[in-house]
Amino acid sequence: MTHHELLRELQLKNKSKIVLLVADGLGGLPQQPGGKTELETARTPNLDALATRGVLGLSTPVLPGITPGSGPGHLGLFGYDPLEFRIGRGVLEALGIDFDLGPDDVAIRGNFCTIDSQGIITDRRAGRIGSDIGKALCQKLDQIKILGVEVFVRPVKEYRLVIVFRAAGLGGAVHDTDPQKTGVAPLDPVARNAASQRTADIAREFLAKAREVLKGDAPANFFTMRGIDKRPSIPTFEEVYGLRPAAIAVYPMYRGLARLVSMNVLDAGQTLADQCARLEAAWNDFDFVFMHYKYTDSTGEDGNFAGKVQRLEELDAAIPRITALKPDVLIVTGDHSTPSKMKSHSFHPVPVLLAADNCRTDACTSFGEAQCLQGGLGQFPAKYLMTLGLAHAGRLEKYGA
Amino acid sequence: MTHHELLRELQLKNKSKIVLLVADGLGGLPQQPGGKTELETARTPNLDALATRGVLGLSTPVLPGITPGSGPGHLGLFGYDPLEFRIGRGVLEALGIDFDLGPDDVAIRGNFCTIDSQGIITDRRAGRIGSDIGKALCQKLDQIKILGVEVFVRPVKEYRLVIVFRAAGLGGAVHDTDPQKTGVAPLDPVARNAASQRTADIAREFLAKAREVLKGDAPANFFTMRGIDKRPSIPTFEEVYGLRPAAIAVYPMYRGLARLVSMNVLDAGQTLADQCARLEAAWNDFDFVFMHYKYTDSTGEDGNFAGKVQRLEELDAAIPRITALKPDVLIVTGDHSTPSKMKSHSFHPVPVLLAADNCRTDACTSFGEAQCLQGGLGQFPAKYLMTLGLAHAGRLEKYGA
Repeated sequence: MTHHELLRELQLKNKSKIVLLVADGLGGLPQQPGGKTELETARTPNLDALATRGVLGLSTPVLPGITPGSGPGHLGLFGYDPLEFRIGRGVLEALGIDFDLGPDDVAIRGNFCTIDSQGIITDRRAGRIGSDIGKALCQKLDQIKILGVEVFVRPVKEYRLVIVFRAAGLGGAVHDTDPQKTGVAPLDPVARNAASQRTADIAREFLAKAREVLKGDAPANFFTMRGIDKRPSIPTFEEVYGLRPAAIAVYPMYRGLARLVSMNVLDAGQTLADQCARLEAAWNDFDFVFMHYKYTDSTGEDGNFAGKVQRLEELDAAIPRITALKPDVLIVTGDHSTPSKMKSHSFHPVPVLLAADNCRTDACTSFGEAQCLQGGLGQFPAKYLMTLGLAHAGRLEKYGA
Repeated sequence: MTHHELLRELQLKNKSKIVLLVADGLGGLPQQPGGKTELETARTPNLDALATRGVLGLSTPVLPGITPGSGPGHLGLFGYDPLEFRIGRGVLEALGIDFDLGPDDVAIRGNFCTIDSQGIITDRRAGRIGSDIGKALCQKLDQIKILGVEVFVRPVKEYRLVIVFRAAGLGGAVHDTDPQKTGVAPLDPVARNAASQRTADIAREFLAKAREVLKGDAPANFFTMRGIDKRPSIPTFEEVYGLRPAAIAVYPMYRGLARLVSMNVLDAGQTLADQCARLEAAWNDFDFVFMHYKYTDSTGEDGNFAGKVQRLEELDAAIPRITALKPDVLIVTGDHSTPSKMKSHSFHPVPVLLAADNCRTDACTSFGEAQCLQGGLGQFPAKYLMTLGLAHAGRLEKYGA
């Protein structure tokens, strides 16, 4: 029996409110061994007060040593096993441009490339064309018609694009056409199973027509396809947890991930203040709110230790507006670590803070990695975080008599 | 490979003795955040001495955030995955009145109710009749004969009863007849699979006859059926662990749970002193003894912080009689937490103390939740506790060469 099957059985409805505040890439590393991490360096009096009255811990997003992307990182926080529910690259790219993927859609990440007169790839990124050129080419490709299929072509950034085929019954298992090197022709789209043969045929027809459309557009006179897939079939928050969920996220990718689990995606504005205002306005309409804060990750990716510290202090300053609403359970955590020392996502466990009236408090009095290691939640798989949230909200019946 | 399959392979017999002392609902919460729990408040010099020479930890009975009932809580302590082995409500109720359920038995929890002349339920608990009335009605129902089936009807308390059908080959998968509300008739007993069709038919015949028997007995002129099930098929302690096990428990439910895993259930008397005397008398006859102490849970359920503290001190006072027997491994733990602040079972991890000559001692010098969080056993699923016990008793071979 999976934990989701168990939660479906045990879910209990009440009037409690749960807030999940995700500081993207929250976990960090000291600049020098023995020093303090970004979170430990930041002055965070509000988070420290929450840490004192709540309980801390460290979550493992996927498995020990595994660095998650944003997709698996968030699925884990949402309580979905990221090894069971996989999100294809094409799907994530579509979510990242706010494309509302439906159950009949196959999403594909495209890369504009340069081919020579023999059809051989000479540049896998088409000389890194500007976004304006990419956008214009996508508009041309979007005009291609294929019988019985809706086709959508959307620019992402520079040489990157998204292609979506929409038709009932399309399978999503088709191999990449990107050969991952120059000096060879793009591969044919080959189905990985019988249910995806039609998808492969559509892709082949689309590529043939696209080659005609783009033939005068060197350096971007063709494109390769990667991460061809449908969105995974994911049970909703309502089904599994009995929650009416909302998402307040500024960046499209996170809105898309929230939509995957059928959250209501609210207009988040542009700033943390906008997000707090939205939270206040929507407070009575939902049981669960996911708020996403991007800048702890982007400063980490930039290798900007001081910048990440500052962004954490900005986040801390927003906490009183959230606690003023008196959520029954407030969780502050990240989807993964992004140490500025590494300039990338990392595999390190992620700080977790859970504040609720009936939590078993530990000795921790500030929010940081070393304190979290001493915390009462211990180290646990991120997929159980929602279970802990529901438990502290009184939303689970006893298991067995 | 499950841990049970592994233990069957690795089990080793020797002369060691293991005692598992379960203080029901052991874990707690402080009355005020930052305060001490019941266990931390209690003066427990003997347990503290054990904690100093042993190793502490915290166990998770089922999964993080899941509150267990007594059944799953104990199965976990006995080393059985409580998500794999499930115990139906009817079975637990039968165990709770010391009914010796066999493998051919289907057990049903019954609730006397009141129906009107149209057969519509007007009171789901028959005006909460006294236990004496319930007992008399059960004696009448116990006379009902059904061809090819042994029928047992036993009172539990007030409006609650247990019905057992005994016949070879009966399936246990039949839906409740309790509609969970008044103003409607009881439901028909419907089989959930083909193997349980005969059970459903028997239940229908029994209900028809019972309606005749009870027709003059308003307010208790009928009953509903819930939690219809057979006892799960559970491998024995002898098979999995190579242990000759005994149980010394005052309350029937815990004797029943011990019987489920084929422990020898000894006469426990009424008090902890009686239990200790029984332990001493039986010391040479068994390898493993489960002792159950109820009052830490019942005081917790009553919201009686001081009472739970006192019961813990009484338990502590009994420790020297147990240690005087020099068990090779002594484990003191609970099946779940019952914080008096919550007046119910809870999802919080459960304190564990394991004392043995070869344990890797930690820095802990008293038995309490905060110390357990720092303990050498860490936080671990309760189902591995038996493995730890066997290991410390030298009862497991090396795995692989």
